Amino acid sequence: MPAFGRALRKDFPLEPGYVPVNQGSYGTFPRVVRQKAIEYQEQCEQHPDRFMRIEAPELLKQSRSQLAALVGCPDPADIAFIENATMAANTVLRSFPFAKGDKVLCNQRMHVHPLRQFSTGYVNVNKTLEFVSHYKDIELVLVELHYPLSDQAVLDKAAEAIDQNPGIRMAVFDAISSQPGVLFPFEAMTRLVQKNGILAFIDGAHAVGQIPLDLQAIDPDFFLSNCHKWLYVPRGNCFLYVAKRCQQYVHPLGINNHYKQADHPAFSFEKEFLDLGAVDYSSVLTIKDALAYRASIGGEDAIQEYCHNLAVQGGALVAEFLGTSVLENEERTLTASMVNVELPLTNAAPAEVIPYFTQTLIYEHHTMIPVFPIGGKIYARLSAQIYTDLEDFKEAADALKKTCQAFEAKN
Amino acid sequence: MPAFGRALRKDFPLEPGYVPVNQGSYGTFPRVVRQKAIEYQEQCEQHPDRFMRIEAPELLKQSRSQLAALVGCPDPADIAFIENATMAANTVLRSFPFAKGDKVLCNQRMHVHPLRQFSTGYVNVNKTLEFVSHYKDIELVLVELHYPLSDQAVLDKAAEAIDQNPGIRMAVFDAISSQPGVLFPFEAMTRLVQKNGILAFIDGAHAVGQIPLDLQAIDPDFFLSNCHKWLYVPRGNCFLYVAKRCQQYVHPLGINNHYKQADHPAFSFEKEFLDLGAVDYSSVLTIKDALAYRASIGGEDAIQEYCHNLAVQGGALVAEFLGTSVLENEERTLTASMVNVELPLTNAAPAEVIPYFTQTLIYEHHTMIPVFPIGGKIYARLSAQIYTDLEDFKEAADALKKTCQAFEAKN
Repeated sequence: MPAFGRALRKDFPLEPGYVPVNQGSYGTFPRVVRQKAIEYQEQCEQHPDRFMRIEAPELLKQSRSQLAALVGCPDPADIAFIENATMAANTVLRSFPFAKGDKVLCNQRMHVHPLRQFSTGYVNVNKTLEFVSHYKDIELVLVELHYPLSDQAVLDKAAEAIDQNPGIRMAVFDAISSQPGVLFPFEAMTRLVQKNGILAFIDGAHAVGQIPLDLQAIDPDFFLSNCHKWLYVPRGNCFLYVAKRCQQYVHPLGINNHYKQADHPAFSFEKEFLDLGAVDYSSVLTIKDALAYRASIGGEDAIQEYCHNLAVQGGALVAEFLGTSVLENEERTLTASMVNVELPLTNAAPAEVIPYFTQTLIYEHHTMIPVFPIGGKIYARLSAQIYTDLEDFKEAADALKKTCQAFEAKN
Repeated sequence: MPAFGRALRKDFPLEPGYVPVNQGSYGTFPRVVRQKAIEYQEQCEQHPDRFMRIEAPELLKQSRSQLAALVGCPDPADIAFIENATMAANTVLRSFPFAKGDKVLCNQRMHVHPLRQFSTGYVNVNKTLEFVSHYKDIELVLVELHYPLSDQAVLDKAAEAIDQNPGIRMAVFDAISSQPGVLFPFEAMTRLVQKNGILAFIDGAHAVGQIPLDLQAIDPDFFLSNCHKWLYVPRGNCFLYVAKRCQQYVHPLGINNHYKQADHPAFSFEKEFLDLGAVDYSSVLTIKDALAYRASIGGEDAIQEYCHNLAVQGGALVAEFLGTSVLENEERTLTASMVNVELPLTNAAPAEVIPYFTQTLIYEHHTMIPVFPIGGKIYARLSAQIYTDLEDFKEAADALKKTCQAFEAKN
């Protein structure tokens, strides 16, 4: 078994000198998976009709079965493949038969800042809820969350909102949020909302590959997770799980010839979603190859344990170097494989900080670290990976310090 | 300049012995374009953040400008890239602010057959209209078309439906339909419906690369066309043009952080669609490489002229060999680079014919030719391409004859 850390960097196609501490935004994947994707593409172009009509759907089922086993989903037919988390969220929210005035609970994570009109969970999901509120006249119930918070405080806030807003139909919340990159008490939240007759839609965009999942035990109504972020599959690739009891509410964003109304005897969630249409299947097909690679280097538990420990240690290192602190609660339940560290900036406007850091970190420090505001402060989110170690966090800390200094000097 | 025909087969990655007369279903693309796609993918994986956030959007604009010039669109910002025609149709139809009872005119091309509940234009577009009729309570007005028909007869049918159904808001019709693969009088139809205060949404899935387009002259309200079918770009790749006067009605299927309601001063169609999200950009980026290849072998006019002439001659050859006829009208305006030939079958049930022909043509005759019913007969659709010549149509004719004989013998 190879050792985790920089020695594994050779397995990934990242360029020399790059400090890769941002798996969370776009993911990356090993050379062996890339090679498999190329082979599927070549197989397709030999005879596109044979591949698209016959071979690809069969290969897709192999990926679907293996993924279902990984996430504890007893029936692979309950899993659909969609391009990314944004599209998967739109799939549910734009086909669910909302009636005028239906209420949807969403979790607001941070103060509204100039780049976000409406900040509940991931910005694209928020914006989709906003679109649906315009298109279908639904009402959004926001839960305001000021991190750091204990899991119990998050649950209490949601319970309060549910009490104050009778008739909520669906709740949309994260498994691991994006900014800040923190674990959410999604299992307890699922039980809380379902106990109140509310459908639970979990945005697990960052979940699969970062934390263990057992969908049968969690029993959400809807669950999505990108495979391209933490599972080492090429972009764009997301899976959407829909509980059988809710499959009648969901149709693909690209309605196809299998479409039937839910009350039609031939309605089939599986058939509607098995037909991906004219797309490049290679990303979906490499799920099994990504899982084989993960098994070859030690398996899910080993990967997740290494990344979590590195995030905790690396975050502490960066905070100490910057003279700030990690975003955590007393129970230390917020950090999975992403860690959020406060930046030593005073009175920094997010609308200026964000583009400056993106440009400077990429072009002057050969890295990328997302930065974002929480409660008047600016935080940076760093991702741990099997091909990084504390040396990368030291380099990232140095890049952040220099960029903070340059930003303060400029202003 | 290389000669068109089998000599050009070496430029394409199709396997030896394959008889490629079905460009229309999934398209194919030259090795040089494939190589460019691989290079963009490699560039991305060197530093995914730099590529996805900065480099890809800039490269995308180069493709968009060149495509806009090709299709006569003065402002490239009016063009959006979407995965395929189905998704592009859903983009418009599922964000357009229909009110309950709004009417949409659609063109019904053939008798309803068992695989098609509702047959107006392309099945996925029909099904999307059906979904929207359920989701938003709109009313569909069908125009029944029994081919072959003259262009004037098609226009007369539509005019009659418009007269009989006051208050139609949008008309959805093809540029070149799929089954049968025939040219539609889309320019005259645009003028007809717009004169009646109806928005014109043209499904040009098969158009770009097969026929010349001048969007400024046609002036549709919405126009989509796959680039992966006839323009030699990897799947999935479609462009959607929306006239500026209608951009307020359209948002992406994956609503993103640029979403604004149409009456917001910062609303921007371009911004909402420029952000493709976490996807593989390589297909969009190769548009300019595909156009360079097309220029290198003689350019659009030469390609389209060769393919059209081959479709006409090849169709006549197949019909003569089968003892049947080509689907054409008296003015001979139906055939572009796809030709539809009647099969010598009697009392054949489409639900049996279609899967039998797919399986037999692919696995016993090393080809693929879509077959479908029109008015109680079964037709086959053959595509002409720069890498095929009459020899391929002879082989296809032989495969069709043998498959017809085997099907009749079996039944």
